[in-house]
Amino acid sequence: MNKVKIGIISLGNMGSSHAVNIIKGKVKNALLTAVCDLDQTRLDWAREELGNEVELFNNTDDFYRDADIEGVIIATPHYHHPALAIEGFGHGLHVMIEKPAGVYTKAVRKMNEVAAKADKVFSIMYNQRTRPIYRKLKDLLDAGELGEIKRTNWVIDWYRPQSYYDHGGWRATWKGEGGGVLLNQDPHQLDIWQWTCGMPVRVRAFSHFGKYHDIEVEDDVTAYVEYENGATGVFVTSTGISPETNRFEIAGNRGKIIVEGDRLTFRRLRTPERQFNKEYQGGFGQPECWECEIPIDGDNPEHIGILNNWVAAILNGSSLIAPGEEGINALMLSNAMLLSSWTDDWVDLPIDEDLFYEKLQERIDNSSFNKKASGNKVLNVEGTF
Amino acid sequence: MNKVKIGIISLGNMGSSHAVNIIKGKVKNALLTAVCDLDQTRLDWAREELGNEVELFNNTDDFYRDADIEGVIIATPHYHHPALAIEGFGHGLHVMIEKPAGVYTKAVRKMNEVAAKADKVFSIMYNQRTRPIYRKLKDLLDAGELGEIKRTNWVIDWYRPQSYYDHGGWRATWKGEGGGVLLNQDPHQLDIWQWTCGMPVRVRAFSHFGKYHDIEVEDDVTAYVEYENGATGVFVTSTGISPETNRFEIAGNRGKIIVEGDRLTFRRLRTPERQFNKEYQGGFGQPECWECEIPIDGDNPEHIGILNNWVAAILNGSSLIAPGEEGINALMLSNAMLLSSWTDDWVDLPIDEDLFYEKLQERIDNSSFNKKASGNKVLNVEGTF
Repeated sequence: MNKVKIGIISLGNMGSSHAVNIIKGKVKNALLTAVCDLDQTRLDWAREELGNEVELFNNTDDFYRDADIEGVIIATPHYHHPALAIEGFGHGLHVMIEKPAGVYTKAVRKMNEVAAKADKVFSIMYNQRTRPIYRKLKDLLDAGELGEIKRTNWVIDWYRPQSYYDHGGWRATWKGEGGGVLLNQDPHQLDIWQWTCGMPVRVRAFSHFGKYHDIEVEDDVTAYVEYENGATGVFVTSTGISPETNRFEIAGNRGKIIVEGDRLTFRRLRTPERQFNKEYQGGFGQPECWECEIPIDGDNPEHIGILNNWVAAILNGSSLIAPGEEGINALMLSNAMLLSSWTDDWVDLPIDEDLFYEKLQERIDNSSFNKKASGNKVLNVEGTF
Repeated sequence: MNKVKIGIISLGNMGSSHAVNIIKGKVKNALLTAVCDLDQTRLDWAREELGNEVELFNNTDDFYRDADIEGVIIATPHYHHPALAIEGFGHGLHVMIEKPAGVYTKAVRKMNEVAAKADKVFSIMYNQRTRPIYRKLKDLLDAGELGEIKRTNWVIDWYRPQSYYDHGGWRATWKGEGGGVLLNQDPHQLDIWQWTCGMPVRVRAFSHFGKYHDIEVEDDVTAYVEYENGATGVFVTSTGISPETNRFEIAGNRGKIIVEGDRLTFRRLRTPERQFNKEYQGGFGQPECWECEIPIDGDNPEHIGILNNWVAAILNGSSLIAPGEEGINALMLSNAMLLSSWTDDWVDLPIDEDLFYEKLQERIDNSSFNKKASGNKVLNVEGTF
């Protein structure tokens, strides 16, 4: 079988990790032929670590014009994902973008429109969709085991000390990164939340900016959402709270599912609650409940799994685990939470993309934040995403 | 030692239970001398179960004028607590009220003002304050073991099927009961929340009325709060969700405490987070965390404990576990959550009591709810409160 020739734009934390994985042969039928980075130190690293077969570029114009590639992995800072993906499609390439899909949905929607016309394979690095526990959760929900959803509740902390924010001048600024915990730490949870439970119809959120850190973006958020069927949801997240909680509880007509740590517990009602509510005459009482520990099977391929799936989709049309077009959903939630906090009001979904862009631009324009950055160090992120 | 002569107003679920406990000698130095109820069936029950020594009254005027009592337990529907307590103080009595303190804080504040001048022992039936797990929680927080609080999060379900609401014509109406899950099921949790973590300064809540039941009051609420120190909190409650969750998580500078079921877990940080945040230079990393199972010791006297404490306070000045004046706090939270939902806006604490009263009155006046009540049955509530 042919190998897919792949190029990577940006050799930061994730890009360099993908490069090494491909070079090591962990992505079946993938051949790394080119990489691109603005930073000479990183290109030197690439020559050293990736070998002489990989062509090096120090700007995307040359890369897109000259690189011998069929697919591109875009692992730049968030802002550049949509524009570089659009350029990639323009050059007839298959595209894989890192998460989040972008910083604001207006740009991501344009990317999706171009992708829809491109007839190329477009995926996003939602590696947590490959986790057995979330695959099983989605399986249960899609199969109707929980019945109609009534309430979702996710508390997810991603602790970061100040030194995390001090690495890299672009980090945690409106201009450089475009957001905080919602954009950088939560994309996977926001995606898994909507992937399993669907998108809400409106959001009321409360974000705190630089609450626990010397940064200008949000590091603590509580959001309340409502779904079309009347179900409610809460999403609570912080980079200032340790130890971390990661507890996802979903209540439905058939009971409750709790995902916490590596356990998936299904508290299953023998009689659906809506039926019991109507039929039971005893005043106090509730349906018989079975505490079920659900087996979590299968491997956990994460980033390598998403890369393999993308290449397989390119070569033989396998269905994508994480279609690139779906990246807009988690970003929509993230944008809606910020917009609700900024306007101190409800935000209906889909959001007013122009209003979000305008409010974001105000923050970029009015930023007086001086980063005490200690340089563009590449942090070791092994095991953190 | 003298015995305190006690009368009870209303022999519903709780009043009859208190009466039996006193008659059985479970409340030290307490003598039940009189009971009062409008309903002849209940008075017949009292004559049968409580014996001939207990004087029976079928109206509070006669009761307050003629009963040979030193203390009164008020176990009527919520609306009557403040007025009857004020009357009790007026007759020179010690007063114990059932929870909630009332339906709206305006009346409860008046009760507290009268109580403050009365020099009598005033308590409220916050029996959950006697639970060893909550006493231990308060002990840890008051002693500073968790450090400054950053976030509180309580999910508490009280499942009730429709038949619960169909018992008793006054239940779950604005006129009869004045509220739903917040007023009837949650007073203990709202009290424990503020007793351990303090009162917030503002509330934004989302209440759903008759969402899971054929009732006009709220049966599903999500509330977001902010505290004076910037901490945030979430309170989620429903009578429409089974199985029930009861999980209270408090994050602080020294880690996290989780109260769930009969377990109190303290995830204790060896280095306080605020200190670690400043000092740690590694980018990724967090303080060393110790998973501590906290021992829960002591008996769990509940209602009998609160009654014994009240009588002991009357006789020898013991300090109260649940001073009556503190009843306003949980009610303030409950009122604030409804008011925020009704106005679809923030509510600052203390709330605008007149506005709440006005909005409640509107709902009473505009109620077109016809109860399909199956009579004023006294449900067996053993083990439910």
